Amino acid sequence: MTGLSSGAERGRGASPLSGASPTIVLGLQSADAAPEWAQALGEALPHARVLTDSADAPAADYAVLWRPQPGFFARQPRLAAVFAAGAGVDWLLNDPTLPAALPVYRIEDGGMAEQMAAYCAHEVLRFHYRYDRYEAQQRAGVWQEWPYASPASSTVGVFGLGKMGEAIARALTALGFAVRGYSRSPRALAGIECFDDSHGLEPFLAGAQVLVLAAPLTPATRHLFDATHLARLPRGAFLINVARGDLVVEEALLAALDSGAIAGAALDVFRTEPLPCEHRFWTHSQVRLTPHVAAMTVVSESACQVARRITQLGQGEAPSGLVDRRRAY
Amino acid sequence: MTGLSSGAERGRGASPLSGASPTIVLGLQSADAAPEWAQALGEALPHARVLTDSADAPAADYAVLWRPQPGFFARQPRLAAVFAAGAGVDWLLNDPTLPAALPVYRIEDGGMAEQMAAYCAHEVLRFHYRYDRYEAQQRAGVWQEWPYASPASSTVGVFGLGKMGEAIARALTALGFAVRGYSRSPRALAGIECFDDSHGLEPFLAGAQVLVLAAPLTPATRHLFDATHLARLPRGAFLINVARGDLVVEEALLAALDSGAIAGAALDVFRTEPLPCEHRFWTHSQVRLTPHVAAMTVVSESACQVARRITQLGQGEAPSGLVDRRRAY
Repeated sequence: MTGLSSGAERGRGASPLSGASPTIVLGLQSADAAPEWAQALGEALPHARVLTDSADAPAADYAVLWRPQPGFFARQPRLAAVFAAGAGVDWLLNDPTLPAALPVYRIEDGGMAEQMAAYCAHEVLRFHYRYDRYEAQQRAGVWQEWPYASPASSTVGVFGLGKMGEAIARALTALGFAVRGYSRSPRALAGIECFDDSHGLEPFLAGAQVLVLAAPLTPATRHLFDATHLARLPRGAFLINVARGDLVVEEALLAALDSGAIAGAALDVFRTEPLPCEHRFWTHSQVRLTPHVAAMTVVSESACQVARRITQLGQGEAPSGLVDRRRAY
Repeated sequence: MTGLSSGAERGRGASPLSGASPTIVLGLQSADAAPEWAQALGEALPHARVLTDSADAPAADYAVLWRPQPGFFARQPRLAAVFAAGAGVDWLLNDPTLPAALPVYRIEDGGMAEQMAAYCAHEVLRFHYRYDRYEAQQRAGVWQEWPYASPASSTVGVFGLGKMGEAIARALTALGFAVRGYSRSPRALAGIECFDDSHGLEPFLAGAQVLVLAAPLTPATRHLFDATHLARLPRGAFLINVARGDLVVEEALLAALDSGAIAGAALDVFRTEPLPCEHRFWTHSQVRLTPHVAAMTVVSESACQVARRITQLGQGEAPSGLVDRRRAY
């Protein structure tokens, strides 16, 4: 897929990978999004043919996917690369029908990091400054001020320092919070205390009044936040999950919320989505939940990113965003 | 009060203004804060004598004031300067017993700008990203996502670009919002569209989806946001007031909220504080209110600032923060 020679070969026009007129198939969970993707890709790649997944769709060169219908890869045997229409690819890598050698690209930022930073900033501010208490006072007609604590006295731990986690960490630093981050491999970010796998999770969790989960779901992170690890947080900590529900053992989180060990949680992602109507998160007094909207795909930006990568692949270049199947993101 | 000669004179020790052992009187509305001020000033100025306002208190050199008891200035005839224990000095300048020639200093930032920026960021994020709608959906058990709008597509106008307004504008810019600011005299701030009195208020208000009031209360700003000016905002705008209640005509704001011309308001300050229990703001569905806590005086930082200024005055220097009585801040 990379290297100038194959690019030159494709450039002769015999290959379906020709940068001039690629065929792109859309396999999106929500049919609502397809027209916007088709229009944006069509504008960015005027000679491309964009079609929607169906039983009689012709074999395409590339696919833009978000939880496609079953049998997608059997229907599309000639794909040169697939583009996940989001940052997380756990659902795709866990698909046993995904061809082993098919290159997978994921959206990098694409307008999502800013949204996630906004979501986390809103929740951290609300928790730290206790705006919830003032809301309750308004309902009760009570005029009373509460002592102030500097944000610098409050440590927020951001688990995962990819494009999303870094944006979250920077936004919180700008708001005056003491921020630490955790990544698989060592990072150095100005103003952020960086931990990695060589330190282990415990020193990162100890003293983190707020824990933000912003890492991909991989075999290494699945159910990482179980009763044992949640218990490493200081009493009264707040948990924000904008990553994937399965990073957390939901029963362990509920137990910690019930006991008061964890003071509250803002959850955007869940083991099962949509969250089943009988799930206790819906009505738990210490849980704030949103329907997986902390970072919505911005189709215009994401389609530009995909179009740019298709052009690069057509020219034999190596685009960024290629998923490393071994590390699973 | 300024100039090296008078400083040198004081330096001889005959004057009560000697930097070596000034007497400081505290005239604070809340007696609770006095011990913390006394301790912080005592630590910063070990030779100072710090006392609390009372009928038999000796004449002091300096005063730290926040809405002192009536008759304060008659009881303290020898003050060389007074320090307001906050950023706003309208209550002090409106006191007819304040001696005309007495220099007044106000706290500059002192940890308050960060708090105000946090308060405004929380409200702007909540309004722009419609987190209120997701809260309502959780209560109703509804899993539904809503379209996303980029913060760059939303303009926030910050009225007042002093220490507070600038911090608010910068925090919102960092979160991706389009930010414009209004100040009395021209300013130039990177990334912020700056308006001033030479433009007039209307172009600043037109198109501001959120209006943040962060200016001092002066004869020029009192009741500036009346029915006419509020009507210049785009329909469905959101108002945040962290300045002084009297910048706004409360009845005009209520009428705009009732009609939907203004979608909502987050109010920290009011014409009368505490807000009277019968006031409609308490129960208006589109009003969020807090009891004047958006920026609480951080005594440790503020006392350091006052101590530094007392030392400077004792050395004949001219500290910053001197209030210009003519412009009223």
